Amino acid sequence: MDFGFDARTEELRAQLQDFMDSHVHPAEPVYAAQLAEADDRWAAHPPVMEELKAEARRRGLWNLFLPGEHGAGLTNLQYAPLAEIMGRSRLGSEATNCSAPDTGNMEVLSLFGTPEQRRRWLEPLLAGEIRSAFCMTEPDVASSDATNIGTRITRDGDHYVINGRKWFSSGAMNPRCAIFIVMGKTDPDAERHRQQSQVLVPRDTPGVRIERSMNVFGYDDADHGGHAEIVFEDVRVPVDNVISGEGEGFAIAQARLGPGRIHHCMRAIGMAERALELMCRRANERVAFGGPLADQGVVQHWIAESRVKIEQARLLVLKTAWLMDTVGNRGAHTEIQAIKVGVPEMVTWVIDRAIQAHGGAGVSQDSPLASLYAHARTLHIVDGPDEVHRRSLARRELKKYKTQ
Amino acid sequence: MDFGFDARTEELRAQLQDFMDSHVHPAEPVYAAQLAEADDRWAAHPPVMEELKAEARRRGLWNLFLPGEHGAGLTNLQYAPLAEIMGRSRLGSEATNCSAPDTGNMEVLSLFGTPEQRRRWLEPLLAGEIRSAFCMTEPDVASSDATNIGTRITRDGDHYVINGRKWFSSGAMNPRCAIFIVMGKTDPDAERHRQQSQVLVPRDTPGVRIERSMNVFGYDDADHGGHAEIVFEDVRVPVDNVISGEGEGFAIAQARLGPGRIHHCMRAIGMAERALELMCRRANERVAFGGPLADQGVVQHWIAESRVKIEQARLLVLKTAWLMDTVGNRGAHTEIQAIKVGVPEMVTWVIDRAIQAHGGAGVSQDSPLASLYAHARTLHIVDGPDEVHRRSLARRELKKYKTQ
Amino acid sequence: MDFGFDARTEELRAQLQDFMDSHVHPAEPVYAAQLAEADDRWAAHPPVMEELKAEARRRGLWNLFLPGEHGAGLTNLQYAPLAEIMGRSRLGSEATNCSAPDTGNMEVLSLFGTPEQRRRWLEPLLAGEIRSAFCMTEPDVASSDATNIGTRITRDGDHYVINGRKWFSSGAMNPRCAIFIVMGKTDPDAERHRQQSQVLVPRDTPGVRIERSMNVFGYDDADHGGHAEIVFEDVRVPVDNVISGEGEGFAIAQARLGPGRIHHCMRAIGMAERALELMCRRANERVAFGGPLADQGVVQHWIAESRVKIEQARLLVLKTAWLMDTVGNRGAHTEIQAIKVGVPEMVTWVIDRAIQAHGGAGVSQDSPLASLYAHARTLHIVDGPDEVHRRSLARRELKKYKTQ
Amino acid sequence: MDFGFDARTEELRAQLQDFMDSHVHPAEPVYAAQLAEADDRWAAHPPVMEELKAEARRRGLWNLFLPGEHGAGLTNLQYAPLAEIMGRSRLGSEATNCSAPDTGNMEVLSLFGTPEQRRRWLEPLLAGEIRSAFCMTEPDVASSDATNIGTRITRDGDHYVINGRKWFSSGAMNPRCAIFIVMGKTDPDAERHRQQSQVLVPRDTPGVRIERSMNVFGYDDADHGGHAEIVFEDVRVPVDNVISGEGEGFAIAQARLGPGRIHHCMRAIGMAERALELMCRRANERVAFGGPLADQGVVQHWIAESRVKIEQARLLVLKTAWLMDTVGNRGAHTEIQAIKVGVPEMVTWVIDRAIQAHGGAGVSQDSPLASLYAHARTLHIVDGPDEVHRRSLARRELKKYKTQ
Repeated sequence: MDFGFDARTEELRAQLQDFMDSHVHPAEPVYAAQLAEADDRWAAHPPVMEELKAEARRRGLWNLFLPGEHGAGLTNLQYAPLAEIMGRSRLGSEATNCSAPDTGNMEVLSLFGTPEQRRRWLEPLLAGEIRSAFCMTEPDVASSDATNIGTRITRDGDHYVINGRKWFSSGAMNPRCAIFIVMGKTDPDAERHRQQSQVLVPRDTPGVRIERSMNVFGYDDADHGGHAEIVFEDVRVPVDNVISGEGEGFAIAQARLGPGRIHHCMRAIGMAERALELMCRRANERVAFGGPLADQGVVQHWIAESRVKIEQARLLVLKTAWLMDTVGNRGAHTEIQAIKVGVPEMVTWVIDRAIQAHGGAGVSQDSPLASLYAHARTLHIVDGPDEVHRRSLARRELKKYKTQ
Repeated sequence: MDFGFDARTEELRAQLQDFMDSHVHPAEPVYAAQLAEADDRWAAHPPVMEELKAEARRRGLWNLFLPGEHGAGLTNLQYAPLAEIMGRSRLGSEATNCSAPDTGNMEVLSLFGTPEQRRRWLEPLLAGEIRSAFCMTEPDVASSDATNIGTRITRDGDHYVINGRKWFSSGAMNPRCAIFIVMGKTDPDAERHRQQSQVLVPRDTPGVRIERSMNVFGYDDADHGGHAEIVFEDVRVPVDNVISGEGEGFAIAQARLGPGRIHHCMRAIGMAERALELMCRRANERVAFGGPLADQGVVQHWIAESRVKIEQARLLVLKTAWLMDTVGNRGAHTEIQAIKVGVPEMVTWVIDRAIQAHGGAGVSQDSPLASLYAHARTLHIVDGPDEVHRRSLARRELKKYKTQ
Repeated sequence: MDFGFDARTEELRAQLQDFMDSHVHPAEPVYAAQLAEADDRWAAHPPVMEELKAEARRRGLWNLFLPGEHGAGLTNLQYAPLAEIMGRSRLGSEATNCSAPDTGNMEVLSLFGTPEQRRRWLEPLLAGEIRSAFCMTEPDVASSDATNIGTRITRDGDHYVINGRKWFSSGAMNPRCAIFIVMGKTDPDAERHRQQSQVLVPRDTPGVRIERSMNVFGYDDADHGGHAEIVFEDVRVPVDNVISGEGEGFAIAQARLGPGRIHHCMRAIGMAERALELMCRRANERVAFGGPLADQGVVQHWIAESRVKIEQARLLVLKTAWLMDTVGNRGAHTEIQAIKVGVPEMVTWVIDRAIQAHGGAGVSQDSPLASLYAHARTLHIVDGPDEVHRRSLARRELKKYKTQ
Repeated sequence: MDFGFDARTEELRAQLQDFMDSHVHPAEPVYAAQLAEADDRWAAHPPVMEELKAEARRRGLWNLFLPGEHGAGLTNLQYAPLAEIMGRSRLGSEATNCSAPDTGNMEVLSLFGTPEQRRRWLEPLLAGEIRSAFCMTEPDVASSDATNIGTRITRDGDHYVINGRKWFSSGAMNPRCAIFIVMGKTDPDAERHRQQSQVLVPRDTPGVRIERSMNVFGYDDADHGGHAEIVFEDVRVPVDNVISGEGEGFAIAQARLGPGRIHHCMRAIGMAERALELMCRRANERVAFGGPLADQGVVQHWIAESRVKIEQARLLVLKTAWLMDTVGNRGAHTEIQAIKVGVPEMVTWVIDRAIQAHGGAGVSQDSPLASLYAHARTLHIVDGPDEVHRRSLARRELKKYKTQ
């Protein structure tokens, strides 16, 4: 047992932190200003982002998330602490081409894509030229259970015909988001986990209708391409657009789940660290009742609890990454579920206390905290609500002690 | 001891509920649509609101908040349950001319205004023709402690000259908000609670500069006139614009505080009730794992806890109103502070659970829950953060057991 | 709506408080010393208790709990605040002959007893000459659901033959506990709520075997007669010993439930108030880091939250009492369940914080806090665990919004 | 970074687990029965314990806690998971001669003892022939701050004269506890952390008066030698009995603190694991409302949260152990404080939920849960209350962000 990062990780952490400090964090106000000046906030792509991306590539801080030959070749455990550092800024992931859901989509194409699929979509994604969306969640069903999915993908000769409604397709509001991976049922009568398939649907395919942007607590997240509600109406794509084959949709979704969970959680820990830093700075500077907030026992309590909670949560995510690397998805099952419920609980708590320490500034645009909170709050819901994961985790625990 | 409402209250509750059901709730989507179509959302005033106001006047459901001859003459205890009913809709308070901060401003003018002040400002406010703001909070200081206030009101002959910066002046973004009550220091060297004065400043006075709108969790609250940051730079108003007299600012603020706290809290309870209703409806309708959410123990737990918490909180607010009516502000001191911390804690918890039960719909514009949450979250901060009130309440409690 | 106690209640509160201050609280150490000196702590009956009882009778503070002609004739709402005052001392209830489960047993006999049952058992109970137990809970089943009860009461000519095992029969360890009311099934095939009967079983009936004392967190509660596990093996009692009639067991249990819940809850509030007082005193006196604990923000937070929680909980219990008096058990259903879960949650929290403020003294015999905690903790379990009541309450709430 | 235990640790874990399963757990009822039959529970030493100790020695599972030549020579990280396994049984630590406070006392003597001190006290302690106590805490002061200590150790020729009062001296009630390490002030005027000394005081020294046993939630913990209140009145010991030298008391206390904290925390995690196992077993077996508790969502929630909390807490303790081994006490400062507050919070929560799942059995002697809770509850208090550690941790965190 060894709690130190390996040399490669330490080196990358230092390089990434340097990039964040020297380029990304200073670019935040520039990005906001360029976005504010855009004619159409949905099509906006602030030039400073391309400068950051160029700099990241120059520094070799590019596609760090991707294992194997197409990417940086890091293990989950090596990449995890980098995701945390990226998560401290809203710009960090895109600047290094490590944004969700592109990361998951690239990983899927890298693992399961045909040469042609990889050429046409993976390459421009890896180059940061286009963005992508993952169209999974549906408004009308509890889609955390894949067997509920309503979207239909019907074969018609050399084509699939897609019909369905998706929402919270993150990133899809922006026209730079050129390709959608759509989850649907090709065979509703097959065995539970063989009914689903994933199909590549270019944005401009006839029948694809972006209906509206879903807000999150008043934020439209236009800087990240928003969260789209999309109707697919008799959308036709060639059968070659299926990924890995009919009936593979569930298996593909499982494959992306573990790493995606780790990325989400580590970015969330970065958010918590940022909130804690802001809380400390505010407490040191703000004076009330004749002294800095930092002298007040209740604020000290929040700060100490935040540190304790963050440390615990981070270790669990890192252990999960290590399990993924050493025993695989299946052996890390309990931990993958545990971080799904443990990390959001921690991060919303920490940010909420940081907001409270900031008063009015905390809920407004004058700090990133309210926006961080809104994002963190969704982590209790995306990929299935906490309750689904607690229930499943509990059942496994209960089974250990079942007597026949 | 008697926990039933009196006959007048029951009658008004029934009338108000009928008005809400038949007119206000149905008007919500109309209002949203008219607002969306407005050229300038800050100057927008959806016509349906004037229709609601006309109907409310016709029904005698107008200025219910105001005790004494100028208003409905209700006690705090009689008005409180009406505020709860209004709080269930974002339109309820304005439709009945019972919106904050107009209510507090009208009460102040009614109690302390000169005949001329009442003629010029109270009358159009009572008629619902204009709106008003209360400019109290400042960005640079912990203004929950009035001795920290930085705004200066300096006498210069027959005028006061005002210099300072205020923020979160709710309602002030909309041009219909014609009059501001500004809190500032006329004599920084006077005894602690005699330094402050409140002065009437018409919106169009030279030197008044509305700098920007403060967002709350991504919401600009334009439908309620937003929350303005305002700079007062050498703003000159006649000395007659002072309310009650120089040095009376703190006393006036105290006078409005008790009733205002009760109104806020009862509206918040209305919000919690709405959230609980939405949670129940969702739980009955949404199916997951082969049955409605309503069958899941964890959801039942949320619903039961919500009911238990709401019932307790409401009783404490009602008791506070009763104390205000019978022994006055001072005798209700502990309870006024208790509801300041108890009610927001309850209401944010209930809404948060309702959000969780709604999944993606809960955080988005498809339910009012995320917006309710954002508003409820601010209640932990406005009028001084919870911590200030807990500290003060604890000190009074500790004093009971101090031995000499 | 009126939050003041009526004149009779205020008078009794003053009289009872005076009795507690002048006699009961000073008797606490005497009682403990006499108990410690007893040869057999299970049979002990410290003489000071009889002195307290004599004094209480002299003052007319006797059987205050009992409505109707046999007792003080108070309403639930009038008695509730008296139960709170009694609850502040472990001796308060017995000194005034208002101890559970005697109160419930006396109420049942008063309502449903035959003249002979009343003469033989109710009279000595009202006189404080004997004690009684209620044998309801069973170790082997979830007996909060009466349909699970395993004890059988079989008619055999002029007798009933009782077989079963009960535990947590409070008070039954002490030989002064002369009569047991035993709940069992006379007709397991009858309709769900007509299967049960309640039968009077004198302690010395052959076949009654007191097996052992159940501890609660290390306490044996011998001063209150402990909590017995009792085996009933072919116990024969005359058929006249049935209360109200065969099949009436469930209905009788329901009748005692509402008032009993209110008594329990109000005594628990008295416990919380005592804990809060002790916490304040400790905070004022104990010095750490150069000042009294009272100056520490975290301790102030505990004190303020305790006050806020206590006030809310008390009001809900009082409202429940008022509903019982005005609309009866059925109309108070939601509130009776709400206080079952709300009050224990509050009281364990308050006592736990008081313990923390006391350090080592808090967990030891040097303060009553650990013992109060142990007792309060059981309130989450007795009369059915919290979860059962939340579930039932939630279902009723959900039904309101069910569309057909 | 590597989350696997090393080979030596895995081997010892397997051996220890085997010993626990085959000998320790089966001995629990035997031990309880022998204790119950003892004439004097304070002097009792159930024979089965000596059998367990003999077996442990035979298996080489003896003094595992002690680094260096005198003991097993394990690192903190290697020993930590063994402490967890021991913590699952009340007999585990004594059976392997790894009981607190002997462990800390032996470590101190091993590090700082003179050859004579080691011969006389360390050797019989290592052999499990005697027990020892650490007399640190005092009833009258907040002794978590060593500068408050009231006990005086005054030099008088070749002797020290000790006067003071200690309490919660764990183990000291049993006559087998032959030696006390007493913390006191030799020079109250010296620099803050040079005032204290630690002196060896044999139990039978004249002037040592064991006054009474301190209970913990009704438990006297006689099986572990109880928690004594001890008065030292003009107690004379030779000057050779000082450990390490005058003024070294604070430094010695610091040296034992880190490992002691890790042992405490890991045993507590063992307690949490046992509680979780019991909760799962109960949930699988107990039927209510037509199915096992295991099917109820709320119970599943408790189980899942328990697993999530335990996993996080354990990792933080293990990391702390690793830091102690690699960078020492000082470098592990934040983590040592973090586990002080994080672990007790987790373990009391888990045990409390397990109690709730057990109903009456949970609070009584029929499960170990209430006793586990009482012990876990004290962890919030011993070694200084949580609040002291949070405050200190927060201050270090705040300092990171202090601008000059």
